[in-house]
Amino acid sequence: MSHKAFAPPSFSFAHTPAGFRFSAVRAGIKPSGKPDFACAHAVEGTTAAAVFTGNRMVAAPVLVGRDHLRQSGGLVRFVAVNAGNANCATGEQGIEACLAVCEAAARQFGCPSEEIFPSSTGIIGVPLPAEKLVGALPQVATQLGDTAAHVQQFAEAILTTDTRAKIASVAINFGDTPVHLLGVAKGAGMIAPQLLPHATMLVYIFTDANVLASDLQKFLNDAIEPTFNCISIDGDTSTNDTVLLLASGASGVSVAHSTQEPASKTFARALLEVCGSLARQVVEDGEGAGHVIELAIEGASSADDAKRIARSIANSPLVKTAFAGCDPNWGRILAAAGYSGAPMDPGRASIWIGGLPVCQKGRAAEGFEKNKVHEAMLQRTVHVRMDLGMGHGSCEFLTCDLTAEYVRINAEYST
Amino acid sequence: MSHKAFAPPSFSFAHTPAGFRFSAVRAGIKPSGKPDFACAHAVEGTTAAAVFTGNRMVAAPVLVGRDHLRQSGGLVRFVAVNAGNANCATGEQGIEACLAVCEAAARQFGCPSEEIFPSSTGIIGVPLPAEKLVGALPQVATQLGDTAAHVQQFAEAILTTDTRAKIASVAINFGDTPVHLLGVAKGAGMIAPQLLPHATMLVYIFTDANVLASDLQKFLNDAIEPTFNCISIDGDTSTNDTVLLLASGASGVSVAHSTQEPASKTFARALLEVCGSLARQVVEDGEGAGHVIELAIEGASSADDAKRIARSIANSPLVKTAFAGCDPNWGRILAAAGYSGAPMDPGRASIWIGGLPVCQKGRAAEGFEKNKVHEAMLQRTVHVRMDLGMGHGSCEFLTCDLTAEYVRINAEYST
Repeated sequence: MSHKAFAPPSFSFAHTPAGFRFSAVRAGIKPSGKPDFACAHAVEGTTAAAVFTGNRMVAAPVLVGRDHLRQSGGLVRFVAVNAGNANCATGEQGIEACLAVCEAAARQFGCPSEEIFPSSTGIIGVPLPAEKLVGALPQVATQLGDTAAHVQQFAEAILTTDTRAKIASVAINFGDTPVHLLGVAKGAGMIAPQLLPHATMLVYIFTDANVLASDLQKFLNDAIEPTFNCISIDGDTSTNDTVLLLASGASGVSVAHSTQEPASKTFARALLEVCGSLARQVVEDGEGAGHVIELAIEGASSADDAKRIARSIANSPLVKTAFAGCDPNWGRILAAAGYSGAPMDPGRASIWIGGLPVCQKGRAAEGFEKNKVHEAMLQRTVHVRMDLGMGHGSCEFLTCDLTAEYVRINAEYST
Repeated sequence: MSHKAFAPPSFSFAHTPAGFRFSAVRAGIKPSGKPDFACAHAVEGTTAAAVFTGNRMVAAPVLVGRDHLRQSGGLVRFVAVNAGNANCATGEQGIEACLAVCEAAARQFGCPSEEIFPSSTGIIGVPLPAEKLVGALPQVATQLGDTAAHVQQFAEAILTTDTRAKIASVAINFGDTPVHLLGVAKGAGMIAPQLLPHATMLVYIFTDANVLASDLQKFLNDAIEPTFNCISIDGDTSTNDTVLLLASGASGVSVAHSTQEPASKTFARALLEVCGSLARQVVEDGEGAGHVIELAIEGASSADDAKRIARSIANSPLVKTAFAGCDPNWGRILAAAGYSGAPMDPGRASIWIGGLPVCQKGRAAEGFEKNKVHEAMLQRTVHVRMDLGMGHGSCEFLTCDLTAEYVRINAEYST
């Protein structure tokens, strides 16, 4: 019944993985005038792995970032993230603007241009004022540092409609040597990542472990599937979703991807913990969200079918509004499962809300007490378990409700 | 640029197709105490065709209605519709309740039980009080009539969250003989029909043409695809969606389904007109809708891809809230098209809102004036054209915006 993949965000900030420094400045892109240019500098030889949005409409920085990782063979020296402008649907001009920032950063920090990793988040379809970012680079350089405050500033500068910074960190010991993982995320709307190797969600994870780029990619692919690919705020898959994982090697501890090695398992578990926590923090901060809904789907024909059913329930406006109103309208959950496309037999399906039985084999559970379930739904986090009774496929999925506040946030005419 | 399939609801009530009588009474199912039991009586030999929801979770009346049509070979004498209770997720008990109503109606009107067609709409998961419907049948029988008032009462009794009755009628002449089509619909939420031969939307269409049941089914299959299957209010496909078409033959005019016959074409066109009008009326009455959005997708790789892209745009909460705020945020439209699963190349896509160019080949259109487009979006009906530049697939799709009022309607705790 517990949501293992989505550990509650209980992490306190440990300390920055060795080999990284952070900086955040005001480049003048956010209309609010808040810091909007967040950068991370990495020591030479830092390896990188990344996954990007599955949307066919992709932003310029996603195209450039993907190219750069390919050209550099998985090396990154500098991460340049601007908020306030997604640099998406900006055509050839958008690519040029992105490259201009990368080239200026390469000159500033003395590394090949393909070792610069760019990201953007914000409004779609507005040309990116590259000159503002280029002009801010000298200030970025002078302010780099590795304290908790530097990380906090980085995490805040990448936010858009988010209400709070999202940070997760884990320290693991290999013998006497500690290895650190630190993750930073942004995202509150347009969140239904379908990350490929398989948002505007941007996630940066830093570790001082020493990991080959190819192994790093395998670790990352394993970690995103049950975490970022199992959350949805509004069902809208973004054009800019990016998860970047950097390994500086500065701890001196080498980790290879292997199903046998204990060290590999330990590192994988720590990475999963960071991803799960950040994924939960994103949903917790869902635009206008009043409730976080933990879906546990069991007994589906396959794990893929479980995920398809979970996604269908999570994206149903009728389910989401029922949770907003603390209304135990379990028929809407059953209906959403019914149109997911996955095999299901309503006569075998049972549902529990907050641990209380509401539906048993396709009809109202015996002893279903509406008001008691309503009470349970007043909690900020509500657990929903559904057993399809078909097979052994299961998944955990995290979503939030749909409130009038979500509409207000997204219906505002952006003058 | 015009939405041919969705003729504006300009029909005035013509007159009732011969062979049908209508009645609506208070059976005590709607908590409001309003009429909630709507019935239609048809002359002997009336043929029938129907399509039902594609949801795997189907309501008892859908199962019974489908069985009855099969058993009777496509004959219907009596249609019994209750609102206020969907008789869905009610198990074996729900089937028995539905059959009890059918058997009582068969006794009341002297016909085989399998010629009774049942429908239900309302809350899911609550047992249907069959005795209330059975008890109301004698009153139903005494009040049957064929005036415009009777049709209006039928149309009003089937409503749930709808704000108005939905009626469309067309008269066509075959030589000197008029043939009438009359359609009645309900539906305002849980609307994203994926009707199969291939909501809670309920549609009843009556004609006095003489049509074989098998031909009637072909006419219906043709008519629903570009109409009811091309609308969405909230993306939630219902468990109870039903479209029933009855032909009494009382006009004496026989029509066969044929791609050659002018009479077939005339009848098909009239049926399409009725379906298109009712489909538009359903969207016009979408829960909380402030705007109706007419999507015209062109240049897709195939007609199926065009529909997939249209559906993705229509169901995107970010697109829907942008229209609620009259915000020409065309990037959200492009992003929703990008994750539809259909092939697309953002660099070839262009978009017009209210006839004004907003996006040209993947970037802001030259001369895009945000405030001018904003003005155009203040209209109740907004036309959106998207040219994918990929091929010749096209479709018209009708949807509405997502407002705080939609959330209010659906988040209310149903005590």
